[in-house]
Formats: sequence, C-alpha cells, structure tokens
Amino acid sequence: MAKKKKNISALNEKEGVLQPETLNMVVAKQLKSLKKKSPSVDELVSGILNQNQTALSQAITIIESRAQKHQQQAKEIIERCLPRSNKSIRIGITGVPGAGKSTFIESFGKLLVSEKKKVAVLTVDPSSSISRGSILGDKTRMEDLVKEENAFIRPSASGDTLGGVARKTRETIILCEAAGFDVILIETVGVGQSETAVHSMTDFFLLLKLAGAGDELQGIKRGIMEMADSIIINKADGENLKAAKMAKNEFNRALHLYPAKESGWAPKTLLCSALKNEGISEIWEVISTYFETVKSNGYFQNKRKEQNKFWLLQTVESRLKIEFYANPSVKKELEKQLKALDENRTTPFEAAEKLLNLSK
Amino acid sequence: MAKKKKNISALNEKEGVLQPETLNMVVAKQLKSLKKKSPSVDELVSGILNQNQTALSQAITIIESRAQKHQQQAKEIIERCLPRSNKSIRIGITGVPGAGKSTFIESFGKLLVSEKKKVAVLTVDPSSSISRGSILGDKTRMEDLVKEENAFIRPSASGDTLGGVARKTRETIILCEAAGFDVILIETVGVGQSETAVHSMTDFFLLLKLAGAGDELQGIKRGIMEMADSIIINKADGENLKAAKMAKNEFNRALHLYPAKESGWAPKTLLCSALKNEGISEIWEVISTYFETVKSNGYFQNKRKEQNKFWLLQTVESRLKIEFYANPSVKKELEKQLKALDENRTTPFEAAEKLLNLSK
Repeated sequence: MAKKKKNISALNEKEGVLQPETLNMVVAKQLKSLKKKSPSVDELVSGILNQNQTALSQAITIIESRAQKHQQQAKEIIERCLPRSNKSIRIGITGVPGAGKSTFIESFGKLLVSEKKKVAVLTVDPSSSISRGSILGDKTRMEDLVKEENAFIRPSASGDTLGGVARKTRETIILCEAAGFDVILIETVGVGQSETAVHSMTDFFLLLKLAGAGDELQGIKRGIMEMADSIIINKADGENLKAAKMAKNEFNRALHLYPAKESGWAPKTLLCSALKNEGISEIWEVISTYFETVKSNGYFQNKRKEQNKFWLLQTVESRLKIEFYANPSVKKELEKQLKALDENRTTPFEAAEKLLNLSK
Repeated sequence: MAKKKKNISALNEKEGVLQPETLNMVVAKQLKSLKKKSPSVDELVSGILNQNQTALSQAITIIESRAQKHQQQAKEIIERCLPRSNKSIRIGITGVPGAGKSTFIESFGKLLVSEKKKVAVLTVDPSSSISRGSILGDKTRMEDLVKEENAFIRPSASGDTLGGVARKTRETIILCEAAGFDVILIETVGVGQSETAVHSMTDFFLLLKLAGAGDELQGIKRGIMEMADSIIINKADGENLKAAKMAKNEFNRALHLYPAKESGWAPKTLLCSALKNEGISEIWEVISTYFETVKSNGYFQNKRKEQNKFWLLQTVESRLKIEFYANPSVKKELEKQLKALDENRTTPFEAAEKLLNLSK
C-alpha cells in the first residue's frame, strides 16, 4: 500500500496548480495605464509645494515603501522639500490608552483650523505593524477634523523597529512642512521608547492624563514628567472636576521638584474637557506663549539643531551596532563568551576584546 | 651691548646643566635589586590567594598601569583569580560631598570587621585624576578602619574616562574577592555617570543623605532614587533628629511612587549617625535581609549575569563608536554634515549614510 501511494506524498503536488492563470489582457492594459499614471518626482514635489494633499499622501507612501526604486525617489523628494521645511511648530502628544488623545487632538485641531492654521496629525507607534494600529488606525476617531480642508491625518508608518518608524516620521514632517502645514501634532502611546523618540523630534511635549484616576503620580512613568512641557488633565468635567483639580495640584507640586528646564520654561498643569471643548483655547494660549519664549531666547533654534545632531549620531551608532552583531562570527563568539561569563571563566572586558578582534 | 649678550639669550643654557649626575653606584645596585624583587605573576597570585594585602596592592597597581608589559601580566592575574572570585557581596555607596560618606564607611566598616567580615573599600571617581581625589584621596579620613587587619582601602584608579576607571574597579573587585574579602564597599560621588556605573557593578545600592537640609526631595538627582535599595539619612542626632525623621517620611513617601522593583525588594529609608555610631547595625541588618531575599529568589545571581552582559556589550559598543569617530575622514565628514544639517541642506539620516559609507 505504502508503495502505491509514493507518488502522492505530501511533497508532491499536481503539476501546474500553483501557476498563475493567463492574464486577462484587458485588466493588464488597465494596470499598465494605472502604473503609467503613478506621478513623477517632479509632479509630486510641485504638488506638495502647491499644498496638494493627494501629492503629499503619495509622497509619504513612497517614503514608507521599502522598494529600492522608491527609496531613490524618496531621497529626491525629501531633498527638494528640505529648503521649504523647518517652519512649522511640532507638538508631541502622549498619554496612556484611554486618556482621550484622539478626542483631544480632534478638539485641539479644530481650534487651530478655526484660527487659520494648517494642521497635520502624525503618529509614532512602532507596535502598529503588529497590532494593526492601536492609535489612529481608524481615522473616523477624528471624524470632524478629518473633514477639514486644512487638516491632514496620517497614521503611523509601519516598520519593524522604532528607529525605522521614527526616521519615516521625521521625513514625513519635512514633507508636511513643505506642504505648508503650520502645526504638526505627533501622537504616540505610552509604550516603550516611542515617547523619547517623539520628544526628540518635537518642540513641545504634552502629556495627557486622565482626571480622577486615584493616586495620580503613581501611574506616571518615570522620565515622562521630566520631558513634559505641559501636563493636560483631560475629562475635567462634571463629577470629575473636583478630582481633576486635586490632581492638578499634585502634578504641579511634583513638577516643582524638577530642576529648571534649559528652555527657561516652567511646565504647567492645565485642565480640559476635550469632549465638551472646554479649556482647549487656554491650552493653545499656553503653547503659544511657550513658542514666543523659546523663539526669542534662542532655545527653539538651538533645540532643533541639537535634535538633528542627536538623530545623526543615533543613526550612525545604531547602524554600527547592528552591523557588528549581524556578523555571523561575532554572533557565534558572543554566545560562547556569554557562556564563559556565566561560568566565571572570563571578564566582560576580556570577552569584549575577543569580539572586537573578530571584526578586524 | 646686544651683540655682546647674544650668547646668554634665554635660549642658551650652560652645557651640561640638564645632564644627570653620575649615578651613585651603591644606590644603583639597591635600585636594581629592588627591581629584581618586583614579584612575578605567580608570586602575586599566590599572595592574593593567601590573603596577603601587599600582593593584592601590587597586583592592583599592575592592573591600573598603562604599561604594555603590565597589561599582559594583569590579564594573567585576573584570569587566575577569576575562579576564586564572585563570592563577596558588593555594596555601592553614593551621596553628595558633605553627606558623610567617609564617616559612614568608617563606622559601617568597623561594624563589619567586628562581625568577622573582611572588608574592602574601593572608589569610582573619574574626576580624581584631575582633582587629585575628591574622595578617599586621604586615607586618614578613615583612620580607624585603615588600621584594621581585615580592612583594605584603595582609592580610585585614575583614568581619563569613566569607562576606564569602571573597568579597573571591576577588575580590582575580582582580585579583592580572590583575596577573601566578604564585603566590597564601592564609594562614588554624585557626579556625572559614575553613580550609574557603580550601580551596575554592585548588588546593593545605598544613597546617603544629610538630615535637615530643607526640602529633601528637591536636592535629589533624578534617577538616583530609582537606583537606591536604601536611603540612609546621616547625622540624625541632636538637634538634627527631628528634621531627619521628617525627611525619612518624605523619602518613604517618594519611594512609594516608584513601581515595585524586579528584585522584590521594597527600598527603605533609615536614620543613622555615623559619627556617634548610631543606627549602623540596623542598616547592616536591613542589608543582610536584602541579601537573604535576593539570594533565595534568584535575583542576586541573575543580576550579576545581567551586569556581566551589560559590561560586555557596553565595552563593545563604546569601542565601536570611539574607533568610528576617530577615523580622520569620518571626523572631517562629520563636521561637514553637521554644517549641512544646520543649514537645512540635508537630513540626519542622509548625513548618517554618508558617514557610514566612508568606513566601508
């Protein structure tokens, strides 16, 4: 019996089953003409500079693409947008899921648009490629803002690493600025290192908290308070108001514990109800004061310079590491050395030397 | 006149003035025999294993030396001490200048010695090569402890970089452990990154604070509280006692804000007066409880493994960076790219790529 069946083992398959069907020539023609229509770099750049959102979207898609030919196009587009970039203000927004980030951005964005600002909303969420977007995945969460002509909402670039996502977001900022957006809001969730990344690409960093969550300081992540230029307590309405006010005092007291910021700015805690549109214009006033302050004392310009330098060095250093550890003989030796370390047969420095000598 | 004096210008000197005098042959012989006496690696290692402090001192000096021949000897010594190392407990001690670190270590060390422990005191102070030792520079600051047979006090290794100092200290730990020391105290001052370095080479991290310094939390550096396994308020005596107790409450409240430690240990604030020898044995009790806890839950062993891995990767990565940036063409290009960044002519990522391509 076994002998009889030898030709239909799991390793066999009917000839031709996996071959594609003959192309429908009509569809093929349509596809070809569609392909032809994919805009040139020239068209995209002039579209962006003319504030055309379709061109902006297409260009961002090219930036996000991993295809070789797109990477060359992306370089060109960015290069040509650079001289027109750098003129917006960039605001980072973070907060745990449920803090009301989308509602806040909707409310805040609408206010900005009503003041004749052009607003772009981007996200940094390295988890989104796995979770299919825990933030902004569904544009309808900002259903009013998305309808505004002067608002542009773009979910997180996907990518395997935070570094990759951060790079694409920074490049997207350049394009958005070239397309005339005055305010760039960059949303992130309070997970991993993404907050630090967003902090290093924005001018103002805003921490959104929920009112009345109990011991307010308890839930706050270390390092976040230090980065915040303002803490906004959301849902400060109705029965929540009293707790929100108490939380405000607690946060202000905690903020006071930190040394003065290099920016000369003393972070403030503010209340709002994004849902009821309360307190939003006060927040914008505070942020405007911040920008007046840091633009006049030179901190704004200096921080952007420092951020550029940070990203340059960071990119270099992470690539150096990645390439070093990707070397197969390093990989093998690292395993060996870690074992020797665990067994107290070597020191970390001796082991490091062995690894470093490998790549020479 | 000027012509006459041309032979005695400031650039001239009498012939022979700078030449050494003829060697006194008796002294020369003594020196030679001294040199001959410089012990071999064998002698040093067996001295260390026999708990001979002179051999230990000499071996540490070899570790600290930059001479080529010493480096080879150091490697051998460390390698041969390794199997006998790893058995002590390592306690890091930090605090601002004036917090009373020396007095505390004197008092604490004497208690340990009275309990039949062998105590080694090391320091990590990368500034010491410049400031000629802001800590432990003067051994007489611990005049009682230094006389104890079972105590060994060694000031900071000098070095240009924290990395270098940290490495030498870690290697010294190995030698001290092989020499039978049960408790290694590693003192550091609250400057720069040296606290993080000491934290990564110790099992227990102790923050020494002054009582009654006013707003207690205000003066505390960010990150330190997070690292501390215990906060000790020193000089809690006489008129200071009341303020010290208040500070204790304030610290305990602040410690409570941090999430639970991986070690399962809840950091405690304790009072002491090192000068009056009060509260010292309570501190040792707490530390002993800590070690019982972490040795039984496996955290102790695991943390040492993680520390080894940390130092291995850290050494590799800092060397990769140093070597990369030391490349003259990278140096030149980096300057060029930073200028281009400042003038908005490139992006950090584009600039990084240019730099990385140079070293290929």
